[in-house]
Amino acid sequence: MEKFINENFLLENKYARELYSGYAADAPIIDFHCHINPKEILDDIKWKNIWQLWKFDSYKWRAMRSDGVEERFCTGDAPDREKFEKFSEAMPRLMRNPLYHWTHMELARYFGIDDLLLSKKTSEEVWERTSEILNGGLSAREFLRNSKVKVVCTTDDPVSDLSVHDSLAKSGFEISVLPTFRPDKAFQIEKGNVYVEYLNQLEQAAGMEIRSYDDLLNAIKRRHDFFHEMGCRTSDYGVEKVWFRKNPYYEIETTFKKAILGGEQLAPEEIESFKTALLLECAAMDYDRGWVRQIHIGTIRNANTKMFELVGPETGFDSMGESNYAKALAEHLDRLNSAGKLGKTILYNINPKDTEMLATMLGNFQDSQIPCKMQLGSGWWFMNQIDGISKQIEATSKFSILGRFVGILTDSRSFTSYIRHDYFRRVFCNILGKDMELGRLPKDMESVGKIVSDVSYQNAKEYFGF
Amino acid sequence: MEKFINENFLLENKYARELYSGYAADAPIIDFHCHINPKEILDDIKWKNIWQLWKFDSYKWRAMRSDGVEERFCTGDAPDREKFEKFSEAMPRLMRNPLYHWTHMELARYFGIDDLLLSKKTSEEVWERTSEILNGGLSAREFLRNSKVKVVCTTDDPVSDLSVHDSLAKSGFEISVLPTFRPDKAFQIEKGNVYVEYLNQLEQAAGMEIRSYDDLLNAIKRRHDFFHEMGCRTSDYGVEKVWFRKNPYYEIETTFKKAILGGEQLAPEEIESFKTALLLECAAMDYDRGWVRQIHIGTIRNANTKMFELVGPETGFDSMGESNYAKALAEHLDRLNSAGKLGKTILYNINPKDTEMLATMLGNFQDSQIPCKMQLGSGWWFMNQIDGISKQIEATSKFSILGRFVGILTDSRSFTSYIRHDYFRRVFCNILGKDMELGRLPKDMESVGKIVSDVSYQNAKEYFGF
Amino acid sequence: MEKFINENFLLENKYARELYSGYAADAPIIDFHCHINPKEILDDIKWKNIWQLWKFDSYKWRAMRSDGVEERFCTGDAPDREKFEKFSEAMPRLMRNPLYHWTHMELARYFGIDDLLLSKKTSEEVWERTSEILNGGLSAREFLRNSKVKVVCTTDDPVSDLSVHDSLAKSGFEISVLPTFRPDKAFQIEKGNVYVEYLNQLEQAAGMEIRSYDDLLNAIKRRHDFFHEMGCRTSDYGVEKVWFRKNPYYEIETTFKKAILGGEQLAPEEIESFKTALLLECAAMDYDRGWVRQIHIGTIRNANTKMFELVGPETGFDSMGESNYAKALAEHLDRLNSAGKLGKTILYNINPKDTEMLATMLGNFQDSQIPCKMQLGSGWWFMNQIDGISKQIEATSKFSILGRFVGILTDSRSFTSYIRHDYFRRVFCNILGKDMELGRLPKDMESVGKIVSDVSYQNAKEYFGF
Repeated sequence: MEKFINENFLLENKYARELYSGYAADAPIIDFHCHINPKEILDDIKWKNIWQLWKFDSYKWRAMRSDGVEERFCTGDAPDREKFEKFSEAMPRLMRNPLYHWTHMELARYFGIDDLLLSKKTSEEVWERTSEILNGGLSAREFLRNSKVKVVCTTDDPVSDLSVHDSLAKSGFEISVLPTFRPDKAFQIEKGNVYVEYLNQLEQAAGMEIRSYDDLLNAIKRRHDFFHEMGCRTSDYGVEKVWFRKNPYYEIETTFKKAILGGEQLAPEEIESFKTALLLECAAMDYDRGWVRQIHIGTIRNANTKMFELVGPETGFDSMGESNYAKALAEHLDRLNSAGKLGKTILYNINPKDTEMLATMLGNFQDSQIPCKMQLGSGWWFMNQIDGISKQIEATSKFSILGRFVGILTDSRSFTSYIRHDYFRRVFCNILGKDMELGRLPKDMESVGKIVSDVSYQNAKEYFGF
Repeated sequence: MEKFINENFLLENKYARELYSGYAADAPIIDFHCHINPKEILDDIKWKNIWQLWKFDSYKWRAMRSDGVEERFCTGDAPDREKFEKFSEAMPRLMRNPLYHWTHMELARYFGIDDLLLSKKTSEEVWERTSEILNGGLSAREFLRNSKVKVVCTTDDPVSDLSVHDSLAKSGFEISVLPTFRPDKAFQIEKGNVYVEYLNQLEQAAGMEIRSYDDLLNAIKRRHDFFHEMGCRTSDYGVEKVWFRKNPYYEIETTFKKAILGGEQLAPEEIESFKTALLLECAAMDYDRGWVRQIHIGTIRNANTKMFELVGPETGFDSMGESNYAKALAEHLDRLNSAGKLGKTILYNINPKDTEMLATMLGNFQDSQIPCKMQLGSGWWFMNQIDGISKQIEATSKFSILGRFVGILTDSRSFTSYIRHDYFRRVFCNILGKDMELGRLPKDMESVGKIVSDVSYQNAKEYFGF
Repeated sequence: MEKFINENFLLENKYARELYSGYAADAPIIDFHCHINPKEILDDIKWKNIWQLWKFDSYKWRAMRSDGVEERFCTGDAPDREKFEKFSEAMPRLMRNPLYHWTHMELARYFGIDDLLLSKKTSEEVWERTSEILNGGLSAREFLRNSKVKVVCTTDDPVSDLSVHDSLAKSGFEISVLPTFRPDKAFQIEKGNVYVEYLNQLEQAAGMEIRSYDDLLNAIKRRHDFFHEMGCRTSDYGVEKVWFRKNPYYEIETTFKKAILGGEQLAPEEIESFKTALLLECAAMDYDRGWVRQIHIGTIRNANTKMFELVGPETGFDSMGESNYAKALAEHLDRLNSAGKLGKTILYNINPKDTEMLATMLGNFQDSQIPCKMQLGSGWWFMNQIDGISKQIEATSKFSILGRFVGILTDSRSFTSYIRHDYFRRVFCNILGKDMELGRLPKDMESVGKIVSDVSYQNAKEYFGF
């Protein structure tokens, strides 16, 4: 049997292969959004076994639960070896799931295991072979170097002191590890005491008291400035929908004061007005600093209360939400644009029903500030798989300008996820290569290749200004 | 010209053909949701002509109306021969409609007519050849045997005495014909007198008075128990959207009493609260019995008032609705899950815009109770065609676990519809076979074949516990 | 390198090529919806250069803005040559955008330029070669003749005196140039003084005072009659969503009077009730005259306030809206149908998430008045590209009757846009040809070819009654 993961994997014709080998395969990586823990890079950590390396992966837990695996083999206290065995058993049934491709690509790329398919039968052999390599010293930094990563943007709360980033910068490590400003907790005014406690942390980080909405903005601004000094060039927002509700300033001030005094339930409209205003204010800060603003739209989080109480957030109980946010988004962007504060923006939708709406909406706000200022983010989370990637590329092609697209990112906690860049590039080259073969694109390797190399690396570099 | 319906129909490469012939073609059928009249099986009826066999088919009526055919040739009193002629005339214009494939598959499979295409010109010949076979004695039970059906789940109101099922069970007929509990009418509290009359029937069937919401639940529970004794292992609900509106119990009791007293219009919120509560209660009964709960979501029914008054329901005037039910569904499932009452569940969406949302939502509630407890139902009604089937398979592949999928059902009134299983299997094998050819799946016939045979038969058998 | 635009462009196999050359390539064109200025036909205008010919094209402006081009090269006062240069520069990055295909098809078809690809490098050569041909006398009427156009339906406000159409009819020009009744401004009751001014124009055109809602209907009816006399056979409505809100007649009368008196803000419900009623009334007029009613649903217009103030409407700041209008549409159509006033109707959706809902909804109202009375409009605006066209064809195939589909229209201001018919036909033939090759359609060239020729020309001719 031919090797499953081979050099032509996902490259269906000669054009695709030539595009990939000539313009994509060796391109460096700018990972402008991920959830890697920078401490693991600073410490250049190693792992005892493959399950340790993979341990925080809600994709795998979801897949295992779907296969009927008990929770103790997912987030629980079963031994790593047994967890890996359960995952291996499920693997053949996960054919066509992105995990099937990712897992085999990760085994092939980082462990040289391309001569077998993971299953119950091969589980032990894979365990042994991966353990050997991990024990042989494959470290966090080695993963990054091996993957040709140039820049890593982590995800950081405004209260973070960024000391890890600072140490990394001073360590002489050749790969940039930069913070990303993610102020989601500052928005969660509905959370009562949890919110007040968060404000306490923010007060400490910003070195000021927060007694009013204005104070909040000032505190955020101070952290924003600090992040900028520390090399941050992008912010990130996770929102269930785009908020837009006009309200006079003094009402937002009142709402905020109610929240910090506690005791009184906020009305949904008050919450929405507050978030509307704060999202606009943060956008203006991002604009003023020339940052790229990233917004991830539409997830329903922690849908399973029972499991949330047992195992907490980010453990695989989130899914696609659904709302009609076209008008709110239009008003949000229009407001910023009219104020001269609409900067570089990447919007990611999780529900694919919104892709075309979003792509065309972004087109209303393009201008000469920078080419393709408004970007449709690449297939995100559930949509980061062949069909999702393809759908995003279609929308960017049809409704925007493909040659200016900034490409993929990992959005992952795991160092093995850098194969997602390779995955994306193969899918991308294959789409263009098939179009060339069918005569939908000219057989002009140089022009098509230029798009491939720009989307793989160059566009992100220029857009983010790294 | 090669035969249109031939052994390789829809199987585009050697892998697809090998998967089909090796793992799918001979698999038995579990038809876990259909609208066949069990009396027709009990009586082992025969048909005078092909239009008699096809007579209750709203798909055909819709197609004919689209072709400008008068109603008397659809639901009206024109002679069968003329109706068939009208349908035959439209056929060439229906290319790419699922009816085009189904019709020719039905003619080929059950009547051996694979040497011509149905059209005005061939209409008479087809009429003659099919009549000959039907008059030769092809009966209801022969259709089931010929199609390798093992289990048929009909659709039954809780008030049904299931005497037909009982007679069938005692008749020694080798194929299981089991009831399905479909309590839709018990939900229709907005229907005034029609609802009260239905409650009268339910009182009689349950042998008790229904004076309160509690009585209603008890009566339904009695019928649920009776259905279980009669072999029922699945329920089915047809809902326009998923209801979720929290309300205190006493208000639901009040709403119900208002409804049975009559005279007073119920508020939309009252109706929704009632349905919310009843759906949860029925789910709990299903869970307690270990049944599979099937929910069909999102149809707008009887949209054409004029035709409803002329020809009644289920005559082809229904279409896809549209609502944002992600949050309501999340809350419905979460409530059951927290109560320990979320059992085996299959959700079918009619509007394909909801497919990805639904598939990812189900993933929030998988657990070790049974593998793939939460299932995305196969392409349903309008979506039961190549593209719809493919979209559902994509979503199950990408967001769930394909190897655990329970597969297709007919959802039909007609005995010729068993070719829909063959249709699905061909599409399924073709998708996997193409992936193998393209290197997206390993060329590992045994592992891929295992998925095919499991999805064709084995998974449904285990999931339903037949 | 082979020519990019060649005779087999987009035709991927021999069946597709045979269908195209045998049944589509030479078919005449009925352009039943466009935005061409009839004065340009009457004057048989010529153009100084290619940018003059292309000058009102918001697709190009959007693409250029996405590439970071300054506004003065789009709608501004930069010289034509420089604008064209900027567009040429962006072109290679616009691969996979419909503009990439359209532009090269337009250059090949009307200017014989099929030996190069537009780019910064070739910009000057293309400028020279197109200028030579334009200066050589290629005129508006030549474009129409060259494109085999038989009928052009322009887009006209009810207040138009249609004198241009009248002159054209009397001019002996062999191609019919007919008006289309587009009363959008009559609906815009929310626009205060702008609305009142519009009513003044309508009073003058209709020769009567408008003091009441009844007067408004009468005035519209007079213009409708006049348009009919002038050869108009179709109306067109652009709506953000489908309005349906029941209200007593006297309240609509009150709302209208409030609007014409001015001074008082109308409530959203009042506006919606007014539009609901007027849409029904206009539909009845269309029915009575046997016109085809076209409705374009779902655009968000003028989303960018800053640019709207700078450069006005229809300059490329519109995008897909999103709303759940299934129920409102069902009620709108049902109301008309019950009143016996539902005539020939083509509905176009801009957001592709609505396609399947819409296609199935239309099926509820088909009858024997005329074959496929209710039509799903071809891929419109953003969706008029390969994927959008394909999605519409899928929906028409699966949920309606492909052989009765009336096909494509240009929806354009530009005379070069007639290649969009050729584009559609190639995509259409390719879809059918691929199905033939795969065995999804019979290899019956005559039957499939009949569908191609009917959809290319014959169906529109019969449906519109030209």
